[in-house]
Amino acid sequence: MKQAILARSDLGMTPGKLAAQVAHASLSAYLKVDSNTQKIWRKDGQTKIVLKVSDKDALFEFKKIAENNRISASIIQDAGRTQLEPGTITTLGIGPAEDSIIDDIICDLPLY
Amino acid sequence: MKQAILARSDLGMTPGKLAAQVAHASLSAYLKVDSNTQKIWRKDGQTKIVLKVSDKDALFEFKKIAENNRISASIIQDAGRTQLEPGTITTLGIGPAEDSIIDDIICDLPLY
Repeated sequence: MKQAILARSDLGMTPGKLAAQVAHASLSAYLKVDSNTQKIWRKDGQTKIVLKVSDKDALFEFKKIAENNRISASIIQDAGRTQLEPGTITTLGIGPAEDSIIDDIICDLPLY
Repeated sequence: MKQAILARSDLGMTPGKLAAQVAHASLSAYLKVDSNTQKIWRKDGQTKIVLKVSDKDALFEFKKIAENNRISASIIQDAGRTQLEPGTITTLGIGPAEDSIIDDIICDLPLY
């Protein structure tokens, strides 16, 4: 099992800002799956991959694809206290779910 | 309420690798607090800050300080599938807890 977190590369986020937004997406998507899936993924080492998308539209496209595959998906809006405008869409968490399903969804995206 | 995640700056992690390790620490520390604290923090916007420490020893020092303040603290070891040696200590999640307690613990650390 794994979780994928997609993040925009067009916002100029610092590494720390990116990391906080990724953590936010990770937890939000995790909380949407059933407790058995949560448990299996945690015991399996909480595998996560962080991938780059070009813009906001791409995040929404991948959210739709994930939902069409019945995989949990959480879009994150930054609260805008620092660096970004309030309400900026930053990241998308997908899963955890079976490796093969996640891989099919994110196949061509580069690592962040 | 807020959560602090401390990450080593001496490992040369890529932004994506850093983000995955921060997300790992965030979820692990979150799972150690009671469900009421979890709920309050989530409703409050899941505030997280990502801070820089110089090395592994610093992570263990801050873990001790957090635990002395009775705050949840989770040290993360990388599985070592990519980039880092297996078992490398990468990050420390602290809290969520009251802002003032977290601020007292991490006061002088720079943002990542």
